[in-house]
Amino acid sequence: MKNKKAWSGRFREEMDPLFEKMNQSLSFDIRLYKQDILLNKVYSNELNKLGIISDEDLNKIIEGLDVLEKDIEKKGISIFTDEIEDIHMGIETLLVKKIGESAKRIHAGKSRNDQIATDIRIYLIDEIKEISILLKNFLESIVFVAENNLDIIMPGYTHLRHAQPLLFSHYIMSFFFSLERDYERLADSLKRISIMPLGSAALSGSGFNLNREKLRKDLGFKYISKNSIDAVLSRDFILEFLSNISIMSITLSRFAEDFILYSSEHFNFFILSDKITTGSSIMPNKKNPDSLELTRAKTGRILGNFVALFTVLKSLPSTYNKDLQEDKERLFDTIDTIKDVLKVNKIVLDYLELNKTIMKNSIDTLSFATELVDYLTLKNVPFREAHHIVGKIVMNCVENQFYLTSLTEKMLVSYDKNFKGIKDDWANIETFLKRRELEGGTGLNSVKKQIDYAKKKLTNNFTI
Amino acid sequence: MKNKKAWSGRFREEMDPLFEKMNQSLSFDIRLYKQDILLNKVYSNELNKLGIISDEDLNKIIEGLDVLEKDIEKKGISIFTDEIEDIHMGIETLLVKKIGESAKRIHAGKSRNDQIATDIRIYLIDEIKEISILLKNFLESIVFVAENNLDIIMPGYTHLRHAQPLLFSHYIMSFFFSLERDYERLADSLKRISIMPLGSAALSGSGFNLNREKLRKDLGFKYISKNSIDAVLSRDFILEFLSNISIMSITLSRFAEDFILYSSEHFNFFILSDKITTGSSIMPNKKNPDSLELTRAKTGRILGNFVALFTVLKSLPSTYNKDLQEDKERLFDTIDTIKDVLKVNKIVLDYLELNKTIMKNSIDTLSFATELVDYLTLKNVPFREAHHIVGKIVMNCVENQFYLTSLTEKMLVSYDKNFKGIKDDWANIETFLKRRELEGGTGLNSVKKQIDYAKKKLTNNFTI
Amino acid sequence: MKNKKAWSGRFREEMDPLFEKMNQSLSFDIRLYKQDILLNKVYSNELNKLGIISDEDLNKIIEGLDVLEKDIEKKGISIFTDEIEDIHMGIETLLVKKIGESAKRIHAGKSRNDQIATDIRIYLIDEIKEISILLKNFLESIVFVAENNLDIIMPGYTHLRHAQPLLFSHYIMSFFFSLERDYERLADSLKRISIMPLGSAALSGSGFNLNREKLRKDLGFKYISKNSIDAVLSRDFILEFLSNISIMSITLSRFAEDFILYSSEHFNFFILSDKITTGSSIMPNKKNPDSLELTRAKTGRILGNFVALFTVLKSLPSTYNKDLQEDKERLFDTIDTIKDVLKVNKIVLDYLELNKTIMKNSIDTLSFATELVDYLTLKNVPFREAHHIVGKIVMNCVENQFYLTSLTEKMLVSYDKNFKGIKDDWANIETFLKRRELEGGTGLNSVKKQIDYAKKKLTNNFTI
Amino acid sequence: MKNKKAWSGRFREEMDPLFEKMNQSLSFDIRLYKQDILLNKVYSNELNKLGIISDEDLNKIIEGLDVLEKDIEKKGISIFTDEIEDIHMGIETLLVKKIGESAKRIHAGKSRNDQIATDIRIYLIDEIKEISILLKNFLESIVFVAENNLDIIMPGYTHLRHAQPLLFSHYIMSFFFSLERDYERLADSLKRISIMPLGSAALSGSGFNLNREKLRKDLGFKYISKNSIDAVLSRDFILEFLSNISIMSITLSRFAEDFILYSSEHFNFFILSDKITTGSSIMPNKKNPDSLELTRAKTGRILGNFVALFTVLKSLPSTYNKDLQEDKERLFDTIDTIKDVLKVNKIVLDYLELNKTIMKNSIDTLSFATELVDYLTLKNVPFREAHHIVGKIVMNCVENQFYLTSLTEKMLVSYDKNFKGIKDDWANIETFLKRRELEGGTGLNSVKKQIDYAKKKLTNNFTI
Repeated sequence: MKNKKAWSGRFREEMDPLFEKMNQSLSFDIRLYKQDILLNKVYSNELNKLGIISDEDLNKIIEGLDVLEKDIEKKGISIFTDEIEDIHMGIETLLVKKIGESAKRIHAGKSRNDQIATDIRIYLIDEIKEISILLKNFLESIVFVAENNLDIIMPGYTHLRHAQPLLFSHYIMSFFFSLERDYERLADSLKRISIMPLGSAALSGSGFNLNREKLRKDLGFKYISKNSIDAVLSRDFILEFLSNISIMSITLSRFAEDFILYSSEHFNFFILSDKITTGSSIMPNKKNPDSLELTRAKTGRILGNFVALFTVLKSLPSTYNKDLQEDKERLFDTIDTIKDVLKVNKIVLDYLELNKTIMKNSIDTLSFATELVDYLTLKNVPFREAHHIVGKIVMNCVENQFYLTSLTEKMLVSYDKNFKGIKDDWANIETFLKRRELEGGTGLNSVKKQIDYAKKKLTNNFTI
Repeated sequence: MKNKKAWSGRFREEMDPLFEKMNQSLSFDIRLYKQDILLNKVYSNELNKLGIISDEDLNKIIEGLDVLEKDIEKKGISIFTDEIEDIHMGIETLLVKKIGESAKRIHAGKSRNDQIATDIRIYLIDEIKEISILLKNFLESIVFVAENNLDIIMPGYTHLRHAQPLLFSHYIMSFFFSLERDYERLADSLKRISIMPLGSAALSGSGFNLNREKLRKDLGFKYISKNSIDAVLSRDFILEFLSNISIMSITLSRFAEDFILYSSEHFNFFILSDKITTGSSIMPNKKNPDSLELTRAKTGRILGNFVALFTVLKSLPSTYNKDLQEDKERLFDTIDTIKDVLKVNKIVLDYLELNKTIMKNSIDTLSFATELVDYLTLKNVPFREAHHIVGKIVMNCVENQFYLTSLTEKMLVSYDKNFKGIKDDWANIETFLKRRELEGGTGLNSVKKQIDYAKKKLTNNFTI
Repeated sequence: MKNKKAWSGRFREEMDPLFEKMNQSLSFDIRLYKQDILLNKVYSNELNKLGIISDEDLNKIIEGLDVLEKDIEKKGISIFTDEIEDIHMGIETLLVKKIGESAKRIHAGKSRNDQIATDIRIYLIDEIKEISILLKNFLESIVFVAENNLDIIMPGYTHLRHAQPLLFSHYIMSFFFSLERDYERLADSLKRISIMPLGSAALSGSGFNLNREKLRKDLGFKYISKNSIDAVLSRDFILEFLSNISIMSITLSRFAEDFILYSSEHFNFFILSDKITTGSSIMPNKKNPDSLELTRAKTGRILGNFVALFTVLKSLPSTYNKDLQEDKERLFDTIDTIKDVLKVNKIVLDYLELNKTIMKNSIDTLSFATELVDYLTLKNVPFREAHHIVGKIVMNCVENQFYLTSLTEKMLVSYDKNFKGIKDDWANIETFLKRRELEGGTGLNSVKKQIDYAKKKLTNNFTI
Repeated sequence: MKNKKAWSGRFREEMDPLFEKMNQSLSFDIRLYKQDILLNKVYSNELNKLGIISDEDLNKIIEGLDVLEKDIEKKGISIFTDEIEDIHMGIETLLVKKIGESAKRIHAGKSRNDQIATDIRIYLIDEIKEISILLKNFLESIVFVAENNLDIIMPGYTHLRHAQPLLFSHYIMSFFFSLERDYERLADSLKRISIMPLGSAALSGSGFNLNREKLRKDLGFKYISKNSIDAVLSRDFILEFLSNISIMSITLSRFAEDFILYSSEHFNFFILSDKITTGSSIMPNKKNPDSLELTRAKTGRILGNFVALFTVLKSLPSTYNKDLQEDKERLFDTIDTIKDVLKVNKIVLDYLELNKTIMKNSIDTLSFATELVDYLTLKNVPFREAHHIVGKIVMNCVENQFYLTSLTEKMLVSYDKNFKGIKDDWANIETFLKRRELEGGTGLNSVKKQIDYAKKKLTNNFTI
């Protein structure tokens, strides 16, 4: 029989090539070759301690793996022959080719079940660190933009209708605080990712008395898995990651949606750089915010990856099932996607121009209506009545196209006598801002405090 | 400026390379090159009729496109330079290189918006036809297996507990009828896919008076889109396809789950071929049903693709938005996946062996309890009372480890006098089957009729 | 033992009350009481034909069920006692109370497995008919609004940037054509819903020789299920419905998104009626488009229902499993939701006011850039060059704040000599529209044809 | 105008009743009445400090709210009139009815936007505490069952095929370690939930200088929101919760799947209590594991809720949009579902019986094949060769129906001379277990350590 699978001993017939194609994971788990080589080095060292691998063999193995790492880096998948199922068998096979029989000793007492679970955890820890750096870079751009546009005024929206004025710096800082939580979720998740499964073998634990504590240290894990069954079958750490990135993508979809709106002709608050926009194949007039639209769209892709793996895992029996092979492509895709998104949106921010005058002038005077309500409230009119009175004033303005701020004391008093004595500056933007210096409010000092907090956080606490 | 984008006229600055990487779709929409080339041929012909492309230019274009098609087939993506955004610009650019200025005329009056919508519809129609052939092949295997194992008896399950006996042929034919509906859904969807958007241009319709009826015929569509806005923005036809395949994958996940169970040591009804099973890297005893586990898992992947595109489309404003670019990778992945799954599971069926004796002997005699109830019912005992009486008999069997079929008339009469005169064959498998010859029942003739229906359907009505 | 469950014969212990609460479905499947009563009448009639129910009993049963139907209509769930599991047991139990022993005969030869599958199909057919009527009503409003605003001009958008002008009537009719396909999907699905499972019993077919053809006619189904296993376990028809409504909700989310934008202060194209807007508890100035925001949000809810049931069904083994009980709440919720959405959005349309002047005046003159390109193309300039030349003109306009339409022949000729002789009306909206009278274009006659088509379709072909 | 909405000042026309029905949230947010009343008390106190509410009014308000809380507890939704939109307006309206004008003062300086975000966070914190107690109870049952069945042996499975033996206690403890992480996720999430939005008002911060630190303390929050925009629009904390419960439900779906399998006739390892099983309406023989099937199915429902809210939130612009109203029903449903699931599955465990002999006897002797491989490996045969040799032995056993453990030294030596001298106990279960005493392995002492860890954890660290 031509079948060269490492496990072919008990099989009479070869795999059908159609199944072989579906079954193989090498085309995507090749991404884990560094992690797998690291693991094999550390593990071979332990087998040496246990007397299963001789000193001489160990040297050959380590050197062989070193060469192999460079070879794969250079040649990629072309280095492997067709019948290779996955990166583990791929590396073992190449190593046998390179150093001979010594290589046949490296799989003693481990299984691909604990090996892949270990590889992917090492990989994911590294990627989370990279993502957190990209996120930090993006947040630094947010803070930079906020600080450099501290007192720019813009309309604030609820239900996409003018609500109350905002400082642009306050607005843009809202993304900092959303994304800070997205960062914290990633940081928290490491506790559950940095757990070493190695030593669990297929499901019941290795038959050799491995020093798992030593393996843990050498591989850079924080914890050791406490139950071998749980260790080989659990993919909750990938689900948690996919979910965390999904939730982050929701924040970024708000960013994209806002920026698409605010840079559209009808708002015209923001000017987007040519660097991150595109044109049309037919209409020479177009300058399209493709970077932001793609950012918005990636939210769907990222959710899809979570749902895909979730549904894969639903109602799988204990312990390892081949279904778990589906975890990797979804994971890799989410990682690649969020990294692109974070990089590109940093450019969006870094080259953002504000149409400051348009932003300020867009503030609808009706946005100060709540100030009138508060005025009456402070004059002891029950809030709900004050609200109703001002509602009538607003209706009058809308129907007769008055500016709310142009109403004189006299006109106001005709609605309610408590307006008697009201000063002109009640609906002044300065007054409005000053009244909102409580923590989290859109007052200038409040925003400065937010920025100070952010800068400190970015300096001290943003290393995973 | 080095920027060579076809739309670069109004831009001062070049795209950032990070954004360029995120923005390009060539790496995946290259898959549509044949469709795009066909479209360009047919469309250039129409521009020729309108006097926009001369006869001489047309000849050059057609010949150039023919050569290009072969070039791309041979060299793949390596034929394109880095700044190419998508397959449309790719083909236009290469054509310009090959035949010069004539190629710069082909985009008149069309937009990438209607072009991509047209390309992808042509592509999808072809793929649905291929999928329906693979599905037909799989169904033929089902019918073959049913016909060749017509009278094999096995336990039927509800709640994964023994319920009533079944003919294996009846059981396996249940997949035919599920998948027949999955096929019908695909067939129905063609009405909504075979609609030509070409002529809709960017959103408002082409400025040239194209003969859309001629374009339709030449491209092989059934219908012409009736509203240009709807034509360029709608992706419901892709959602419908992704959903149809998702629903089909649910049927296949049942197939996989059953086959995993029935081929496990505890059931031992089915023997799976070595061709579609694998071994373990550590445990030499293992023979694992990876093909079926992957089939089961692909259900998640396929759902993920639907959810991804659905979420992308949610609340997009009119008309075309770049978000739509996310449709293709999810579509292609679902197409590739279902084709693999159908091919591999046909092999599962074609090499299936049955442990017929074990299947038959596994029938729990308690599975005939309903026959006793029916017996009493026919003796005028109200059904609900009969059910309760037999429930007591069952409890006695369970607690005392009797076979239900070993109960004598006397013992039965002690529960209810109406059992007086009951013959031994009341709980005989032959009697059981004969009592179920109504349409859709598990009786032998009923199953033969099902098979006859299926064979006729497969012969006459399975061409999309 | 107090346990009064109909199937309690073989059980020693009672259900735990916590499980009883989780297990019961009466609180939601009570919605199917009419369908269940109808089924019981038709089925009892058949049992009478088979001699299992006497004429006298049959009369009692039919009369009892008639009374029961009215009782349930009046008193709702309060009519049932606590231990009732589901509507089937509920009706049988109440009937026994009302008419005594005769009622204990009605369940002979059927199972809750085929009964619920039959009930829910009858129910769903009815609901689809209702939904299609609501959809028709909504489409009639679209056509009405289109016809009454035939020649209103507005900007058309791609990437939420001004692209080319559109007729409002063309724009609004785009929803007709999207929703027409959504309707067709529902219509097509009926083939797969109107299949009667009754007679399949638990899984293997009824032990009594039922006349299924007669049952089919009496229950109003088009087809009879052909395989009892498939009949009791398949829920693909519910998935298909949930998916069809999901896809419809995507169209409606576009409607909502557009209307939110177009009625916002920055666009100010549409005025929404007070009837479907709300105010703020704190800001008296607000008038919020809550109806549209909820419409947009319901898309998520409706998708969630599809995903929920899909994931429930994934990898269930044959045949019936209790998991299937989860189908109903998700189905009912989607039905209720889409009906509300269709009703409320019809009001949105019926009371819509257009700010026609603002719509027209919002057209950016750059939107005519493609006309200039086409002009050059007709003068034999290769399209791609023409596009580039006009791109330069656009850039000049943007940077110097010119109106594109204010460029004189002389200025144009300075970009390209082929502009020599160009008339003033090249970028006239009238010319623009006239150039787009091809099928599906935004030309006036093209839109009239769309409306004519729609009116005919609504009159003749919109009855499921 | 009859319109009694609190914000009706600027509106001419009443809401359409169809929209009113769709718009209202009282039917579900009534669940938050206690939280809303608490908030109003604490907030009124603060308004009193600021001089906006007099001492006398404050007393009336507090007393009124106390009475109201009892009224709502007693009468439920019937206490509210039809036009009430939500719980906030409901409570204000009832309070006005009860105590008159004083009640009209309570909404000064707050908005429903910050109010609902505060209410739901208080509510969710409480519910997470309840869920963590239910989870703790379930985990205690796991540990109890493990400790009381410490040395029961069963087959372990990969790919649902016999792999290697396991201690049942090791197997059942695997759920402890999975669920421990599910618990930790909930615990971690509290940092992001226990943040008080109150004081953010509609979006820009309250116009009154509220002492937010005092409000925080009185409401029991850990933190104060730092940016008012982020505070009113963010629902990531709900997504995180829905995701955390989803991930937990995957663990529980494995529990359910295993228990369904292991209690089926073919495995017959577990006997399920009558308390959590059901019968069939037609087949008196059935005893169905409905509790476990429903547990498995709820996974879909819980995922659906996450997907629903996720899709709702995707690409919402800043700041509050009515779409957010869709968060509550999905949240409540997930909370109710997981609580039922945890309660019922505790009963499953507490009344579980083991068929210990069957479990032990089911161990396939081939499960010891890896021991043979390890034996050779220790004799210096390279692992991969040893694996291949034993594969051949296994094939021989399978094809000739030998027990692997019945092979004599002589027979083994015929495969490889290194088997010379092998003792009989190499494939003994005792040896197998002893070889797996490394941390996390299935050895008896290893499992004891796991149990010790779990007991300590449950005693000390399980209070959120």
